[in-house]
Amino acid sequence: MKAVTFASAGLAIVAGAHAYNSKLDQQSNVTAMNLTGTHGPERPLAHLTPTTGWMNDPNGLFYDNETATYHAYYQYNPNDNVWDLPLFWGHASSKNLVTWEDHGVALEPMDDESGAFSGSIVIDRNNTSGFFDNSTLPGQRIVALYTENSNVSESQFAAYSLDGGYTFDYYEHNPVLDINSTQFRDPKVFWHDETERWIMTLALSQEYKIQIYTSENLTSWEFKSNFSHHGILGYQYECPGLAKVPVIHDSPSNVTLHGNNSTMNATAQTNSSSVDHKWVMFISINPGAPMGGSFNEYFIGDFDGETFTAQDAATRVVDHGKDFYAMQTFSDAPNNDVLGIAWASNWDYAAYVPTEDYRSSMSLVRNLTLRPYSPNPETTEFTLYSEPILNYTQLNTNQSMHKTSLELNSEESVSYRLGKSPQGLLEFSLEWKVNSSALTSKHEFADMSLYFQGAEDDDEYLRLGYEQNAAAFFLDRGNSEVDFVNENPFFNNRVSQNIEIYKIAEDGLPIFKVRGIIDRNIIELFFNDGSSTSTNLFFLSEENYIGTVEISSGVDNVYTILDFDVKQLSVKNE
Amino acid sequence: MKAVTFASAGLAIVAGAHAYNSKLDQQSNVTAMNLTGTHGPERPLAHLTPTTGWMNDPNGLFYDNETATYHAYYQYNPNDNVWDLPLFWGHASSKNLVTWEDHGVALEPMDDESGAFSGSIVIDRNNTSGFFDNSTLPGQRIVALYTENSNVSESQFAAYSLDGGYTFDYYEHNPVLDINSTQFRDPKVFWHDETERWIMTLALSQEYKIQIYTSENLTSWEFKSNFSHHGILGYQYECPGLAKVPVIHDSPSNVTLHGNNSTMNATAQTNSSSVDHKWVMFISINPGAPMGGSFNEYFIGDFDGETFTAQDAATRVVDHGKDFYAMQTFSDAPNNDVLGIAWASNWDYAAYVPTEDYRSSMSLVRNLTLRPYSPNPETTEFTLYSEPILNYTQLNTNQSMHKTSLELNSEESVSYRLGKSPQGLLEFSLEWKVNSSALTSKHEFADMSLYFQGAEDDDEYLRLGYEQNAAAFFLDRGNSEVDFVNENPFFNNRVSQNIEIYKIAEDGLPIFKVRGIIDRNIIELFFNDGSSTSTNLFFLSEENYIGTVEISSGVDNVYTILDFDVKQLSVKNE
Repeated sequence: MKAVTFASAGLAIVAGAHAYNSKLDQQSNVTAMNLTGTHGPERPLAHLTPTTGWMNDPNGLFYDNETATYHAYYQYNPNDNVWDLPLFWGHASSKNLVTWEDHGVALEPMDDESGAFSGSIVIDRNNTSGFFDNSTLPGQRIVALYTENSNVSESQFAAYSLDGGYTFDYYEHNPVLDINSTQFRDPKVFWHDETERWIMTLALSQEYKIQIYTSENLTSWEFKSNFSHHGILGYQYECPGLAKVPVIHDSPSNVTLHGNNSTMNATAQTNSSSVDHKWVMFISINPGAPMGGSFNEYFIGDFDGETFTAQDAATRVVDHGKDFYAMQTFSDAPNNDVLGIAWASNWDYAAYVPTEDYRSSMSLVRNLTLRPYSPNPETTEFTLYSEPILNYTQLNTNQSMHKTSLELNSEESVSYRLGKSPQGLLEFSLEWKVNSSALTSKHEFADMSLYFQGAEDDDEYLRLGYEQNAAAFFLDRGNSEVDFVNENPFFNNRVSQNIEIYKIAEDGLPIFKVRGIIDRNIIELFFNDGSSTSTNLFFLSEENYIGTVEISSGVDNVYTILDFDVKQLSVKNE
Repeated sequence: MKAVTFASAGLAIVAGAHAYNSKLDQQSNVTAMNLTGTHGPERPLAHLTPTTGWMNDPNGLFYDNETATYHAYYQYNPNDNVWDLPLFWGHASSKNLVTWEDHGVALEPMDDESGAFSGSIVIDRNNTSGFFDNSTLPGQRIVALYTENSNVSESQFAAYSLDGGYTFDYYEHNPVLDINSTQFRDPKVFWHDETERWIMTLALSQEYKIQIYTSENLTSWEFKSNFSHHGILGYQYECPGLAKVPVIHDSPSNVTLHGNNSTMNATAQTNSSSVDHKWVMFISINPGAPMGGSFNEYFIGDFDGETFTAQDAATRVVDHGKDFYAMQTFSDAPNNDVLGIAWASNWDYAAYVPTEDYRSSMSLVRNLTLRPYSPNPETTEFTLYSEPILNYTQLNTNQSMHKTSLELNSEESVSYRLGKSPQGLLEFSLEWKVNSSALTSKHEFADMSLYFQGAEDDDEYLRLGYEQNAAAFFLDRGNSEVDFVNENPFFNNRVSQNIEIYKIAEDGLPIFKVRGIIDRNIIELFFNDGSSTSTNLFFLSEENYIGTVEISSGVDNVYTILDFDVKQLSVKNE
């Protein structure tokens, strides 16, 4: 029914059947390319992008312990730089999580009018599936579960790889799960130690249900429960994930938690020091985010092997930026870490972002933990902390700048050149203290602003900072001459972020902190060691990379920069 | 503790005690003014604004059936156009909900360092409080319950009026409720017929609890339950409200609900046609909205006189715009309608919006109902519908324009002058049909755009419309020469809105609908008869009122304007 599929952004089912036609041969020119060698002027250096074509959701993330290699797959249209059918799984691998090697198409759909939609990969060490024999190392027994989207259904398919994830065979009795629905997708599978079974979460998207199935062999699945009508509903649920996330009982910097009435839910919730994990359900919704388009939410709770029970009815936001969607976690990550990658774009405007050879970037890999934080003086509870993985063994620091004890006033701004020939990759960390009693008028715009300006044209810049009357952090990505930025009516210029106090200084004043990674056209912000984050695309003119940072304030003696560290980075040649 | 109060935007408790000093005499110049006569060039015509000074949350809304008059109070600083202590209740009344008469200060705090913070008014017809005798008509037995905010506590006070709400006496045994908290506020009280008691909801803000108390006399309150950790938590909860909202089982336009798999939750939830109301809990959060700053969320459920139980754990958004906060409903509205008003601003930038004599506007009054809608093809459920009350007996239509059956193409735009000497008040309604099969490329920006341009300078305009690849509606308020718009790093230019199909045309194509009211510096959008809304401030240069609308599309034959009606309005002189 045409009208039904109309509003399904990017997921419309195209009517009409075509003969099956493998697209793999047509893509052979892509598979041989190497990402690192084809970075255009606008392409991020330390983020995963496709060599050519269109990318959206991350899929099948896993770590191969045998070769110490991270593998990332993704929704991929190699034929164009917009989403379209047929849709494939693209594949890239990395040993350092900074540079990625492109392996082209990994999975293909059944025909030209279909898609190999999102899914996940597990390591079937014990060969529960029977897909393997002893010629495949246990740590490389790779099984993909994904959604085959045709013009009449969405059903779950299995495929397996005998060569470490580079090529796949399709299970001969696919689908492994079909409930006769057109809106049933994005299986994320993991091994549940306690019940010794495989668990699959997937979205019955338009009924707002995350369904939980179990299996002993990855091919026969039994329905167990629904997790339904939690959080912002939007148009539909997509890309669920259930993860056993480590609980770290200290906040990351041994912050002195403020407030006398602290309810210390963090302690109360765990009851005993032996509990060191909690379960987290991740859901993506699109369209219908409160801030427009796409976003990720999560729920903290318990999982008994069949049912996920949220601890409360709160809706928690994975990332407050505009460009963070469909986050998935890695299977078999080292140290049982929970590592996630998201698609760093928004369906509101993803098809039009001003890149040419390719379109879309992933976020950096994030290490996810649950830690106590105090969103206000009377509450301490667990929240999801995200720490970006930025592997310095693979990076050169071309220039670094470190300032301490800089008191800001409205008469003068401070400007720093960030080295010669910047390449657009920077990392910074900023701690600032706020003395609100120095405010002399409620009419003053009481900001501390950092202007990260283009080296070639300083009329183009990212502005970010904090304003005391709003008690919030801001990012303004609108100061650009790029047509897309000025003309696309969905690409909003400004985002704001409520952040809690990081710690209290000896003089009793509050301290806040942000860490940022800027990589050509993406900025990822991590507040207070990662208790909240904001990931946003931005676009300056071609090769106008950030070359200067200017710090200013509209008020006197309110802000002290305690610590400001900026590094101009580049990626080491391999 | 200074650090504790630091991050409490606009609610910081100022240290230091001062002698009690009535501010009422100092405000006598304000009380005599009449709002209608003092509209500056930028001030909305059909929205409640303060004559001078600062306004935030609506308070004490009630309808006086004896005089057929609506009364609105509000958080008020008459001494400046920014929030500050001492804070008062301002008061305005209206017989038509278009024009409001200013009555100046209604309630004052105990001293200069305190605030008469938000609260509500009830009509104590049966004199349960003992505040009245037979000299006061039952319908004018007005009791205000509000939060007295001092530098050491927030406690609940009562006051009553013997003259219809124009002056108040303070209850001699205040507070009526004090739990020794500094973050305990915003009582909203109503009479519960079923249990024959008064019910109070109020926020234990920083513990994320809405507390429910009951009383037989408005002065003695008994704790019954907490409604806790629902929805987006943000920094804190504020301004709760519990309302018995009429359920209307037909969607407003007898829309043919689409989809074969509709679960018809709407019917299932009510079970029987005799159920004609459901309870809705409203909560405001600030800061910490997913889209930055302030917003309102709601929860549908049941209330037994002591406990509110949400039907699910979904978080529903009252208004998706940037400028809609602290919505409160009227006591004793005609026909038992549930009528609401919100503060139309955002704490992220409210103190800096470019108005001079006054600051802040309320939203229009909205009639709230629960009606079935279909957010996607597989779900039908109840959602909150909002219908603006725009009283045409008080408005002149200076010019109207009505177009039907206008097929858009990329070669030509259509432009309409909207009458001479526009005054900045317009209403429009737009229905459009989308033929997505006419899209020839996924690279085309497939928009239908309406440019509402300034009459004096058409470089300033509001752009709004729909884009097929995003499947979303957009509003761009950033095309302005006003410094605030270009410079304030929180005032984001663009908001986007997911909307469901309104109905299916005879040719099978989907139809969407939006109604908009533009009043000088505020635009309120009501999608599909009000199933979702978006309220946003905007600022063009002084007296550059909207004078032209231009309609264009980037694509051919995709959009047909089925019905476009625009009225230039002005307010009748009384």
